[in-house]
Amino acid sequence: MTTTLPPLRLGIAGLGTVGIGVVKIVQQHADLLAARSGRAVQITAVSARSKGKDRGAPLDGYAWEDDPVALAKRDDVDVFVEVMGGSEGPAKDATEAAIAAGKDVVTANKALLAIHGHSLALAAETAGRVIRFEAAVAGGIPVVKSLTEGLAGNAMGRVMGVMNGTCNYILTQMEATGQGYEALFAEADKLGYLEADPNLDVGGIDAGHKLALLASIAFGTQVDFDGVELEGIQRVSLDDITRAGEMGFKIKLLGVAQMSDRGLVQRMTPCLVPATSPLGRLQGGTNMVVLEGDSVEQIVLRGPGAGEGPTASAVMSDVMDIARGIRISTFGQPAKTLTSAPRAQASTVAPYYLRLHLTDKPGALAKVAAVLGDHGISIDRMRQIDHEGTSAPVIIVTHDTTRAALDEALAAFGTTGVVDDAPVALRIENV
Amino acid sequence: MTTTLPPLRLGIAGLGTVGIGVVKIVQQHADLLAARSGRAVQITAVSARSKGKDRGAPLDGYAWEDDPVALAKRDDVDVFVEVMGGSEGPAKDATEAAIAAGKDVVTANKALLAIHGHSLALAAETAGRVIRFEAAVAGGIPVVKSLTEGLAGNAMGRVMGVMNGTCNYILTQMEATGQGYEALFAEADKLGYLEADPNLDVGGIDAGHKLALLASIAFGTQVDFDGVELEGIQRVSLDDITRAGEMGFKIKLLGVAQMSDRGLVQRMTPCLVPATSPLGRLQGGTNMVVLEGDSVEQIVLRGPGAGEGPTASAVMSDVMDIARGIRISTFGQPAKTLTSAPRAQASTVAPYYLRLHLTDKPGALAKVAAVLGDHGISIDRMRQIDHEGTSAPVIIVTHDTTRAALDEALAAFGTTGVVDDAPVALRIENV
Repeated sequence: MTTTLPPLRLGIAGLGTVGIGVVKIVQQHADLLAARSGRAVQITAVSARSKGKDRGAPLDGYAWEDDPVALAKRDDVDVFVEVMGGSEGPAKDATEAAIAAGKDVVTANKALLAIHGHSLALAAETAGRVIRFEAAVAGGIPVVKSLTEGLAGNAMGRVMGVMNGTCNYILTQMEATGQGYEALFAEADKLGYLEADPNLDVGGIDAGHKLALLASIAFGTQVDFDGVELEGIQRVSLDDITRAGEMGFKIKLLGVAQMSDRGLVQRMTPCLVPATSPLGRLQGGTNMVVLEGDSVEQIVLRGPGAGEGPTASAVMSDVMDIARGIRISTFGQPAKTLTSAPRAQASTVAPYYLRLHLTDKPGALAKVAAVLGDHGISIDRMRQIDHEGTSAPVIIVTHDTTRAALDEALAAFGTTGVVDDAPVALRIENV
Repeated sequence: MTTTLPPLRLGIAGLGTVGIGVVKIVQQHADLLAARSGRAVQITAVSARSKGKDRGAPLDGYAWEDDPVALAKRDDVDVFVEVMGGSEGPAKDATEAAIAAGKDVVTANKALLAIHGHSLALAAETAGRVIRFEAAVAGGIPVVKSLTEGLAGNAMGRVMGVMNGTCNYILTQMEATGQGYEALFAEADKLGYLEADPNLDVGGIDAGHKLALLASIAFGTQVDFDGVELEGIQRVSLDDITRAGEMGFKIKLLGVAQMSDRGLVQRMTPCLVPATSPLGRLQGGTNMVVLEGDSVEQIVLRGPGAGEGPTASAVMSDVMDIARGIRISTFGQPAKTLTSAPRAQASTVAPYYLRLHLTDKPGALAKVAAVLGDHGISIDRMRQIDHEGTSAPVIIVTHDTTRAALDEALAAFGTTGVVDDAPVALRIENV
């Protein structure tokens, strides 16, 4: 087979870390890309906020557009590569413009797709174009491809993942160094690991975006980021990590999506997972996704969740698919056929880890136990920690309960007069 | 998009574990498969050695062929699914017949492709057909797809894998139970974990087939199974596992492929890997593949390497790709463009673990050390094990050396008059 297809021409919007990573791959591996796809892959035009900046790769062979929308509409662009980020504004405008102009889209933008993914997928479908987003989920790990294509013969069970490297870095460094959350947050900030709005990371939003995308593919549902139960890692204390460790667990910001009888469950919350499980062993900024299907049983994928090379590698996976003529629906099946599932996370059960601070007076523990009992929550283990002062930390591990019942019990703690401070409640996930 | 494409019609040759697994998925997930691929996926005809047998899934809706070649040529078959096995005979004949008759081929047959893959790929290319083989490597793990498509933007570095579950089961059970190789081999046999010819498993041949397939994709080379340095696990003793453990290593039947300046390195041999690495922690029959690319850094994929469901899941991944119109060259680029690389494993360096039995007399160790020194091999650590009788086990860890130099030294040990028995030499792989 000789190369008879015309070159595939990319327009890259965004020349930050990821965009430059893509430029470098296209420049350095032109022969490899052509050999594998059967056609040349070229960059014809680029766009970014400031033109002058030295970005570490020559850009003078490419047309420059100040406006990503103009880039998206250019006649010499076949694939619009959106690596700007942001769910609204230029990224959204330019993506819509690209589809309207008959371009395929490759994007690393989890926020855009988590919020507008369904309408964009419908628009692309109508226009006969594809939107691909391998780089939006778990960096270099080919998880979108593995799920959409590799496991296409499976009815999916649970999809789980540690998909925010910054949070996992903070949590594992808290344990490794014995420093508290605040100190590690400051360190992550200094290392440049945090988004401009750090709440995207530590609040679980970024990881929640990714989970919502995977859930859509896994269960054939319209992406529903608002349906994700979100909780950040800000309230996880060193004490929690230590206590969990004593019981054989690690604390991870874990995403879980599954379809229950009552609807779709989507959660991105700090969880306790067995210390010896692959998820429990995950250190630092690495990502891990666990895919469970009825035939395949369990697949675990591990790799770098961010960074120039890994994210650019994922972008190029999508570009190469398009170069090779692979055209898959955005979420793995025609957008029109995606269903709207009820949200069901409140009704699923699990054991929970609770940390309370009790006023140090007789009967306090009994009152707490009574409130839990009143809400149908039975106690597996309870332990009072040695303490100084008037507030006694207590660790409780419950038997299976719904989050809804637990939230009611937590609210009722306030009426006992013995619980100081808001309790910490972390689900124990059987991974 | 409504389903306007005609159904994709499968002819399944082989109704063993994998074939029946595929039948079950097609029967149980008809709606899911149609929703995802945009067309119905149907079985029209099947073939196996004996017709009467109850196989746990109804087959009466399908045409029966005694001869897989006849099945491969049927007009009502679009995709020939070859799950019989064997590198020669019916599997090869039928695969060639299918291609000649204009069918796409999905196969789980690692032996067939490791030996005849290049000529089959050329034939398929000429005929405009595809051969897909996700199920041939590492069972349910979507590793062929991850490597060929997910990492298509990377110049690949090392590809490594534990890809024979039976060997990993035996090695990890030796450690867990303290039993020797022979006892665990017998247990694996009793559990049905061994191929009809057990040497395919414990001799590393089956895993070597898989490695050769991955190497071809990773490096754009013609599949070269004969070029794989093969060594089985038969000589790994409980003592080796214990000694390796004391030094922080586990012993794995590890495949390593990489391109060096001198050519392609392919090895499937028992190796020492760090106990705390993902490969070192792999227990039982699970498979793991590590993919290293210049952009993506390192991806680790873990999952079941065998069994009805996982292997059928991989077959269906290929079937669904074809249903979706995805057409990829067998080894990721046109077969005509695959190169023939020189074999270079003898020239790469690594530290080695050696276990020798020395005649218990003065100066024995010095003689061994001298032989190693004569061959340019320096010693990192050496340890004599407490012993009874006249033969003293000695463990030596060398600094970096080539296998070629080491083999010469091992041969020269015979002339010293102090080395009993053939030494065990295991590479220490920096994973």
